[in-house]
Amino acid sequence: MQVNGTPFRSIWLTPDKPEVLVIDQTLLPFVFEVRTLTSSSETAHAIREMVVRGAPLIGATAACGLFLAAASDASEDNLRRACEELLSSRPTAVNLRWALDRMLPLLLEVSESERAGRAQELAQQICDEDVNTNSAIGDHGLTLISEAANACPHRPVNILTHCNAGWLATVDWGTALAPIFKAHDQGIAVHVWVDETRPRNQGASLTAWELGAHGVSHTVIADNAGGHLMQHGEVDLCIVGSDRTTRAGDVCNKIGTYLKALAAHDNGIPFYAALPSSTVDWTISDGVRDIPIEERAEEEVSHICGRDSEADRLVRVRIIPDGSSAANPAFDVTPRKLVDGLITERGVVKACEDDLISLFPQDAEVRNI
Amino acid sequence: MQVNGTPFRSIWLTPDKPEVLVIDQTLLPFVFEVRTLTSSSETAHAIREMVVRGAPLIGATAACGLFLAAASDASEDNLRRACEELLSSRPTAVNLRWALDRMLPLLLEVSESERAGRAQELAQQICDEDVNTNSAIGDHGLTLISEAANACPHRPVNILTHCNAGWLATVDWGTALAPIFKAHDQGIAVHVWVDETRPRNQGASLTAWELGAHGVSHTVIADNAGGHLMQHGEVDLCIVGSDRTTRAGDVCNKIGTYLKALAAHDNGIPFYAALPSSTVDWTISDGVRDIPIEERAEEEVSHICGRDSEADRLVRVRIIPDGSSAANPAFDVTPRKLVDGLITERGVVKACEDDLISLFPQDAEVRNI
Repeated sequence: MQVNGTPFRSIWLTPDKPEVLVIDQTLLPFVFEVRTLTSSSETAHAIREMVVRGAPLIGATAACGLFLAAASDASEDNLRRACEELLSSRPTAVNLRWALDRMLPLLLEVSESERAGRAQELAQQICDEDVNTNSAIGDHGLTLISEAANACPHRPVNILTHCNAGWLATVDWGTALAPIFKAHDQGIAVHVWVDETRPRNQGASLTAWELGAHGVSHTVIADNAGGHLMQHGEVDLCIVGSDRTTRAGDVCNKIGTYLKALAAHDNGIPFYAALPSSTVDWTISDGVRDIPIEERAEEEVSHICGRDSEADRLVRVRIIPDGSSAANPAFDVTPRKLVDGLITERGVVKACEDDLISLFPQDAEVRNI
Repeated sequence: MQVNGTPFRSIWLTPDKPEVLVIDQTLLPFVFEVRTLTSSSETAHAIREMVVRGAPLIGATAACGLFLAAASDASEDNLRRACEELLSSRPTAVNLRWALDRMLPLLLEVSESERAGRAQELAQQICDEDVNTNSAIGDHGLTLISEAANACPHRPVNILTHCNAGWLATVDWGTALAPIFKAHDQGIAVHVWVDETRPRNQGASLTAWELGAHGVSHTVIADNAGGHLMQHGEVDLCIVGSDRTTRAGDVCNKIGTYLKALAAHDNGIPFYAALPSSTVDWTISDGVRDIPIEERAEEEVSHICGRDSEADRLVRVRIIPDGSSAANPAFDVTPRKLVDGLITERGVVKACEDDLISLFPQDAEVRNI
């Protein structure tokens, strides 16, 4: 996507040297800074410190980290050590293991002298595949926005999104935002209601920044405001991401998604989840019952980070009384009855088992319960 | 209610001198400070600067301000001037006009020398009436909590509330929190899920502080978390306040209330609004259609205030990108189909016109459409 006129990915390899560049997401939305990673340790550190975040991007970054390891010392010992170090940087991120499991056997197959070159190719491939997957999600979702645009030719299509499922969470395009970027690039007038997405504010900081940098019209709202906007015809459709999707079509996404889905349902507004098929967990059907929800640190609720204009610096402030505690479930599950469709890299389907299987018959077969 | 063991109201008169004391709500939850008001101008300033807030408390404060005016100069000219000044401090607050309209004619009826004494009596009366109304709401709501407690004898009753409808918004007890304080004082084990209530964070700052100071178990949550907690049986009932209630039973309350009501409905959890009958607008039936929603300043969404621990001071920080705008509707309407009951000073009724009229036949008659 564009950052004020210049095209960027969230991560990229320098073609002729062992160097990986990433956008430092800890500084957004106030500072745009590119960081250079030159070793697998630096890469693991960048993942741990959330310089990069988002499941697909973490996987791609780990792949790049393994390339950096191979470039400095391509011995099996060193590659295995690098894999361990990278894996430990975000232990629960499934894409991280997936990327390393895919690369390591292919590297060990070839001679040490060939490994760095092969690793670079494979890392680049993983990045490009992610871009292609998201681009395909964007194309399929675009048809939904086009239809909405045809239904309201004299005003922008109003789309509500929750959390950040944009290009910063992937290598490019994003999932929920991919159709929006495609629509914007085709000249379709869109306006995005950006949920701030408490407690970590990924919407207010990352989604708003992405859309602004790419020139897409948008307005930040408190998470509480979506229902009111829907009641008053200010939302034409909702598109969110998914961290995990059951084979029956339940969608697990950032906490608060369920509340917006309820409001969309109550007001007859289409509610879509955009997701790569890699988020489908074919082993479970009932998301509310079977998906464990991560309880994150209380400090994410009790404190907030922002820019102090007077001092022109980032400050972390406490916003609840000293004696009060906070709870912080990070995700919730939107039951499939509230989901009008799943936008995948192979097309848009109803949120139901038969339709998902029809798109991904082999995945369903391999991981059948 | 108690503030760390000492009983307080949010406003009180010093019996033997023209002096009114209020808790400075702009400093909460980090600093507890009582401010002394000695003139109607100081009172108007305190209302304008939100040292006091909440419709019932604003009305009571205005009444006290008129008493301070009468104590310094009881001429009709000065009383009318004070009324104008007080009215202009929060032009949309209907309780403010109500309190002044009630007092002024009664003061003009008596001689100048009697006016200060009469004004003090009337102001005290308005304060006491508010306390009695809220106490009655508390008693009626208490029965609901008692029933819930009987249904789960071995654990606390989990109650979710949104925004601040506690004693700081009234003179004492509060509306939605009155039943909770009554239950706690009777030894019923309660635990309150406190929605932080973005964008102004009245839950995270005021409700959490009130509950903590009175010793009531509570946990602050992001507004996004309520639905997830309800899906997993962590909420027994919801009680919220109401700024305006239609004769049909629709409830207009702080933005985000509607989303919690949808989640409660979806999970079979009782959802109640606690309100003095003064919030019932007998002239309208369809809240979504007919209640105008105040759009407040963008800065309430784009900035947040908290305590910088390092510097030990309150700081206001920006939390959205510089180029992004924000929208800030302050209230939303929860349709009566989602409201299981209205807790009023005369009892708990279903959210429907017939039941409301049966409790308040004269009000309904006088203001019939």
